Amino acid sequence: MRRVHLETSIHDALLGLCARAKAAARALRPVARAPKDHALRLLAERLRAAAEPGSALLAENALDVAAARAAGLAEALVDRLVLDGPRIGAMVDAVLEIASFDDPVGEVIGMKRRPNGLLVGQARIPLGVIAMIYEARPNVTVDAAALCLKSGNAVLLRGGKEAARSNLALGAIVRDAIAAAGLPADAVQIVPAGDREQMKALIGLTGQIDLVIPRGGEGLIRFVAEHARVPVIEHYKGVCHLFVDEGADLDMALRLVENGKLQRPGVCNALECLLVHRAVAAPLLARVAGLADRGLELRVDAEGLPLAPGATPATDDDFGREFLAPILAVRVIGSLDEALDHIARHGSRHTEVICTASYDRSQRFLREVDASCVLVNASTRFNDGGQLGLGAEIGISTTKLHAYGPMGLESLTARKWIAYGDGQTRT
Amino acid sequence: MRRVHLETSIHDALLGLCARAKAAARALRPVARAPKDHALRLLAERLRAAAEPGSALLAENALDVAAARAAGLAEALVDRLVLDGPRIGAMVDAVLEIASFDDPVGEVIGMKRRPNGLLVGQARIPLGVIAMIYEARPNVTVDAAALCLKSGNAVLLRGGKEAARSNLALGAIVRDAIAAAGLPADAVQIVPAGDREQMKALIGLTGQIDLVIPRGGEGLIRFVAEHARVPVIEHYKGVCHLFVDEGADLDMALRLVENGKLQRPGVCNALECLLVHRAVAAPLLARVAGLADRGLELRVDAEGLPLAPGATPATDDDFGREFLAPILAVRVIGSLDEALDHIARHGSRHTEVICTASYDRSQRFLREVDASCVLVNASTRFNDGGQLGLGAEIGISTTKLHAYGPMGLESLTARKWIAYGDGQTRT
Repeated sequence: MRRVHLETSIHDALLGLCARAKAAARALRPVARAPKDHALRLLAERLRAAAEPGSALLAENALDVAAARAAGLAEALVDRLVLDGPRIGAMVDAVLEIASFDDPVGEVIGMKRRPNGLLVGQARIPLGVIAMIYEARPNVTVDAAALCLKSGNAVLLRGGKEAARSNLALGAIVRDAIAAAGLPADAVQIVPAGDREQMKALIGLTGQIDLVIPRGGEGLIRFVAEHARVPVIEHYKGVCHLFVDEGADLDMALRLVENGKLQRPGVCNALECLLVHRAVAAPLLARVAGLADRGLELRVDAEGLPLAPGATPATDDDFGREFLAPILAVRVIGSLDEALDHIARHGSRHTEVICTASYDRSQRFLREVDASCVLVNASTRFNDGGQLGLGAEIGISTTKLHAYGPMGLESLTARKWIAYGDGQTRT
Repeated sequence: MRRVHLETSIHDALLGLCARAKAAARALRPVARAPKDHALRLLAERLRAAAEPGSALLAENALDVAAARAAGLAEALVDRLVLDGPRIGAMVDAVLEIASFDDPVGEVIGMKRRPNGLLVGQARIPLGVIAMIYEARPNVTVDAAALCLKSGNAVLLRGGKEAARSNLALGAIVRDAIAAAGLPADAVQIVPAGDREQMKALIGLTGQIDLVIPRGGEGLIRFVAEHARVPVIEHYKGVCHLFVDEGADLDMALRLVENGKLQRPGVCNALECLLVHRAVAAPLLARVAGLADRGLELRVDAEGLPLAPGATPATDDDFGREFLAPILAVRVIGSLDEALDHIARHGSRHTEVICTASYDRSQRFLREVDASCVLVNASTRFNDGGQLGLGAEIGISTTKLHAYGPMGLESLTARKWIAYGDGQTRT
């Protein structure tokens, strides 16, 4: 009985949050750009003030950090939690950048007159109520709040337990700024950090939430995808390949390996696997093996192994794997078709690159590879909202529906049809 | 044990269908428009031949119809199953119309050069593997197959049990036509009609299916939404409202009531509820009540009841209800705000109309109503792919994500990012 009561009360509490979010979303629907930008600028000011020593935000954050250390959390994870002047400064910059973007809402496209005189088109509108589910980094709280507010959406922010106090403190700052701009504070609500049952209840609220965006490790994303009863956009792992074609410029190929794998190995658009054409395998692998002094570990298939001094043999598991570390799987192949087959089998629809001098093969690669971003002669690291010109991104979708690739402000909107008539009826 | 084996074998059989669909989708990815249109024209020819007496299609259909009658299916439902010359002719017309549409695949938008020289844009691509789940009408089999093929997608068609033989026969015709055009027949596969467990297994195949589109009654759609582990676009009921504002042209308002409610009461964009401003309630309801001789039944709130001779009192349940019959709920209200509140509470985000002479109120209605189609001074019946200029539609989405409103060919596609570089790396 106790459990049933508990679940009912969790469910009721979440429904309460959703009802307030829906009301806020409705109030935001007709709001123009200026008041939203005003709220964002007030938020930036308040965040700047909260970066001063002795602020409530820093005090709450210190409690989160101390609790995480006491609980024995790995120092790398503790580090993600920490807020300090420079990190809060980065949040301020992000908020001001979002304020500078065009408002995606209200744009009307494709307006045309139908034969019966009806004028029809599509107007861009906010999605409504968005739930963000994420892990330890408190900066996501501010980023997501700012992006959702700018696009006219209400958002429920459900961060990790480790950052619970920091997120509540950030939420209070955001809500104050929104209210001070005359907009509904309930446009941003912090969902109290809870267990997986609570998360399940949240993402099971059919009809209450228009979109759930999970951001975090694969475990979190799988849990959300498995249990959601509302639309989800997933941001799965990036198993990104570089195919170096015969006849490719090997200096360029080496730069793409180095940049893709070593510039920032822990991110989803880092390179995980090098496919190299047999015709250029010997010279390229000899040079790639030279990156060992930069900390690169190579796991190479049987054919390539003798060509890469110091490399270890690859196992089957090394293909299709996201290492998130300076480790690169390598396979020698005989043709573009083999590369396409390998990518179709082992890729994660995230980012795929061909390094080639062949016009035909570049065109085939662009057409035939199914991934959110397909590049010719450029680093995998360019699959990023900022790099592709979208401005801030809320994540990189590997779901094809609605958004595929980096999700900017526009992906937090939908389009409704509008029609201006003068009494038209159907016959 | 028996059950476990059975489930395993269903699951394996479905995985086999998905693997063939994936391979076909990959083969279709680079296919240009001409071969796809050729397949559609061959399909039209073969369907025309199958309309001749004695065809295998008509024989199989007759068996479905006889089985349905023997099972005591209501005659209205039996009628949906029947294929005859005119109905097959309508299928042929639909297929030829789809052949005449532009190919949505391949269009590249927003191509621009980034500061580092990288040329980036978005290319429209097929979604991949689509599953259609629908009920008795066999014409959906041909429509969905043609729309999916034209947009470069492979499709799994899972129709109702009642139409099982007809669907298999239609599937064979479609597959023959595709193969004759040199394209992979597995682009269209008929999933053998099964029970709900089989449907659950199908929509649980994470990673195998890019989109499920359920079409049918609310029960079917709820079942799919509840059990799907792959993305779903729902086509829920249409609870469409007409708000007649003070000062509105009452001749026009009457025409909109008549057209919305009586032209075709059984469809999702039919009118279900009239909200009438107090200032015009008396003259309008007197005239609407006159539609009783056309078979209209009115269910009117307490304030309007004395104004509508012959009407019955509305119950609370009559608001927010999809009658799918010549029954209209009526409520008298005092302002645009009350109308907006009523629609926010009882609407189904399908189609909403204002009949007004006021510029301000038309603008507020267009901006503030959240529905897939919002119209001023036109019938609800215009929320339709053909009427809005999309050509054929695969359904009307009331999910905001990806597609909101009528789904044409474009909504069966996604956009991937493409980038042309000359060795760019990130710094």
